[in-house]
Amino acid sequence: MNNFISLENLNPELVLELIDDAICYKKKKAYPNLSNHYISNLFFENSTRTKLSFEMAEKKTGMEIIYFDAESSSIKKGETLYDTVKTLNSIGVECFVIRHIQDRFYEDLIHRLHIPIINAGDGCGDHPTQSLLDLVTIQEEFGSFKDLNITIVGDVVHSRVAHSDAKILQRLGAKINFATPEFWRDSRMTMGSYTSLDSVIKETDVVMLLRNQNERHTQTYDESHFLEQYGLTKERANKMKPSAIIMHPAPINRNIEIDEDLIESRQSRIFTQMTNGVFARIAVLNYVFNY
Amino acid sequence: MNNFISLENLNPELVLELIDDAICYKKKKAYPNLSNHYISNLFFENSTRTKLSFEMAEKKTGMEIIYFDAESSSIKKGETLYDTVKTLNSIGVECFVIRHIQDRFYEDLIHRLHIPIINAGDGCGDHPTQSLLDLVTIQEEFGSFKDLNITIVGDVVHSRVAHSDAKILQRLGAKINFATPEFWRDSRMTMGSYTSLDSVIKETDVVMLLRNQNERHTQTYDESHFLEQYGLTKERANKMKPSAIIMHPAPINRNIEIDEDLIESRQSRIFTQMTNGVFARIAVLNYVFNY
Amino acid sequence: MNNFISLENLNPELVLELIDDAICYKKKKAYPNLSNHYISNLFFENSTRTKLSFEMAEKKTGMEIIYFDAESSSIKKGETLYDTVKTLNSIGVECFVIRHIQDRFYEDLIHRLHIPIINAGDGCGDHPTQSLLDLVTIQEEFGSFKDLNITIVGDVVHSRVAHSDAKILQRLGAKINFATPEFWRDSRMTMGSYTSLDSVIKETDVVMLLRNQNERHTQTYDESHFLEQYGLTKERANKMKPSAIIMHPAPINRNIEIDEDLIESRQSRIFTQMTNGVFARIAVLNYVFNY
Repeated sequence: MNNFISLENLNPELVLELIDDAICYKKKKAYPNLSNHYISNLFFENSTRTKLSFEMAEKKTGMEIIYFDAESSSIKKGETLYDTVKTLNSIGVECFVIRHIQDRFYEDLIHRLHIPIINAGDGCGDHPTQSLLDLVTIQEEFGSFKDLNITIVGDVVHSRVAHSDAKILQRLGAKINFATPEFWRDSRMTMGSYTSLDSVIKETDVVMLLRNQNERHTQTYDESHFLEQYGLTKERANKMKPSAIIMHPAPINRNIEIDEDLIESRQSRIFTQMTNGVFARIAVLNYVFNY
Repeated sequence: MNNFISLENLNPELVLELIDDAICYKKKKAYPNLSNHYISNLFFENSTRTKLSFEMAEKKTGMEIIYFDAESSSIKKGETLYDTVKTLNSIGVECFVIRHIQDRFYEDLIHRLHIPIINAGDGCGDHPTQSLLDLVTIQEEFGSFKDLNITIVGDVVHSRVAHSDAKILQRLGAKINFATPEFWRDSRMTMGSYTSLDSVIKETDVVMLLRNQNERHTQTYDESHFLEQYGLTKERANKMKPSAIIMHPAPINRNIEIDEDLIESRQSRIFTQMTNGVFARIAVLNYVFNY
Repeated sequence: MNNFISLENLNPELVLELIDDAICYKKKKAYPNLSNHYISNLFFENSTRTKLSFEMAEKKTGMEIIYFDAESSSIKKGETLYDTVKTLNSIGVECFVIRHIQDRFYEDLIHRLHIPIINAGDGCGDHPTQSLLDLVTIQEEFGSFKDLNITIVGDVVHSRVAHSDAKILQRLGAKINFATPEFWRDSRMTMGSYTSLDSVIKETDVVMLLRNQNERHTQTYDESHFLEQYGLTKERANKMKPSAIIMHPAPINRNIEIDEDLIESRQSRIFTQMTNGVFARIAVLNYVFNY
């Protein structure tokens, strides 16, 4: 039994193995059999995309889903997350996928319970299955991370994806650039050099766009000029290498982070990322039960 | 692969075939096997009856349901219907049942995507599975539509059911009357003659009541005298032919459209319609995948 | 076909048989096969714990769940409970688990319909599956109810559990004490003697704590001294017989009804009750279909 809390505490060999598992499931359309296992998805922040991706992964492995509705739960009456999880576990739920607004919400759970906990996003902290699906998408495209030039674009400071992606990509041998507005730089992010998208677009293999996390901003910025100043315009996309790809975790702010004509363009892997998310999550479900 | 958007673009032979399919499933308690197909029901207007009828049809054919909650979805954050459907499709959902407040919401979807879309009600437009279940109920009762005398009663102008039912019934050979208050007549409805319920009750085979769509009314009317003036009272029901039947799409405004003692009377097929709805929808699911 | 409305109308032999069934399912991990049966859980009051416990029981027996969302249902538009149940039954739902704020909500349903109705809590009335799981927990522990000394502690007057538990426990041969504040005594409760927890703690076999039903209180009370005056403190727990157990229906008001350090203590059966709830409900599902 394992938890899946962050990619940081996993060694790179294991991460590469999970990536390979995911790519294998996708190719072979064959999945590990986890039937007779009961799972619940506890989403205390809305995220239809991530939640339904997990549910698809769970169904493809034959798991039984006990549907939990955060809105009508006793959490609203002040019950702690620990009590909710302990209660559901007493009822027979054997694994929990949890998204929660609180950073490191899982500490109490992993210390007091012996049930696999999968982190589906904690506050401004981590979102390791999103990172894993990004890695799956890059590996599927390039076959390796060694010496890839990856440019992370946009709202670095508020993005849980940026932090964990940058760390693991660097450990796997990629070279990281941050093309981010001055006001969204993050002094804790030292695994790459700060630059502008224009300076690096020609040698970049992966343009990894971030979502502007407007709901976490305390200061406003000029949305109307954002695309032109910092985003992926058609003009910039035209300078990309033919083999380079565009990624974005979605949902997209159209014509702010990216020109909307590029979303389904030849070099975009944005919807491929969503497809890969299901297989990455199957790999994680298999990991927590069978590794 | 087919869409199921409206009965209008289907030829009558195909409609009769779908009706026969539904009646066959009901009799034989045998259903097409659609297991390993993933489906989502996207209801942006509440309709427990229609939604659960689809879910029952999906379960009886062995489909896997990915539950989508419109309330907590990114649609609320401004995501387009296209993006939502494209996202779910990327995750692996292969067919969509959609109810949406906007007329012809499906245009964009059927032109840009190649996934079966089933219309579960669009604005004031169409509601083709409701029409189909009405047809199944009539065919099951009378064995044919030829020369049947069908009286559509009530709020014609606001009813998506009335429009599509009248058109297809006329094409199948039935004779249509509209027994509707003056203020709810619809000048676009030319497939039948306007009359009063009292004038036609004795020769009518099907009294097809409509729901007063109060939520769509801009002017009020006198509810307290509606039953007596325009609805199906016991006195009027006593004048019906012994072989005639009563239909209503539900939910019913009791003692407004119909005397409540008639709802479960011998000639009522109101709950039979609900039962037939499941089999009609199984026929539609089979149609979009297998025809 | 049976309803399951209250333990009161069941003879004690049958109750003992249901308890034995539940314990047998738990031990053997073998469940009755109810696959191909369609069920809906209609919860008009929120209760995640009870609802998910039923869903787990339904899944373990292979039933198909048609998910009903009370929030978005036509009940909100004034549809009666009878119409909702009749509609779902027409669609093919064969059994209903219902929690409703109204006392004896089931009267109309059981007289007019012939479908198994399971009471999951009616107003301030009954909650028979909660009582059954309490009985399962006691029987599993002591092997018999004969001459057990059971002390029901706390908010007796507002508790649906207290009423039905006290009645059935007395019929099964247990001796009941009520250790309840003066202001929450219930003159209708004559199956035990009123006392204080301190007077009986040493000879009690089962300390059955109740939840303070704050949402039903019209008068406030002093929460800050409640534990010390009326609740289960560590000091009181130390005086319990080594073989005695602690029960609570949850959710718990920590440090009001019970010192939180006792919740997962050696003598607590609070989470065992939740586990047993699933098996008790499997016994009830089997009863309504197969007895």
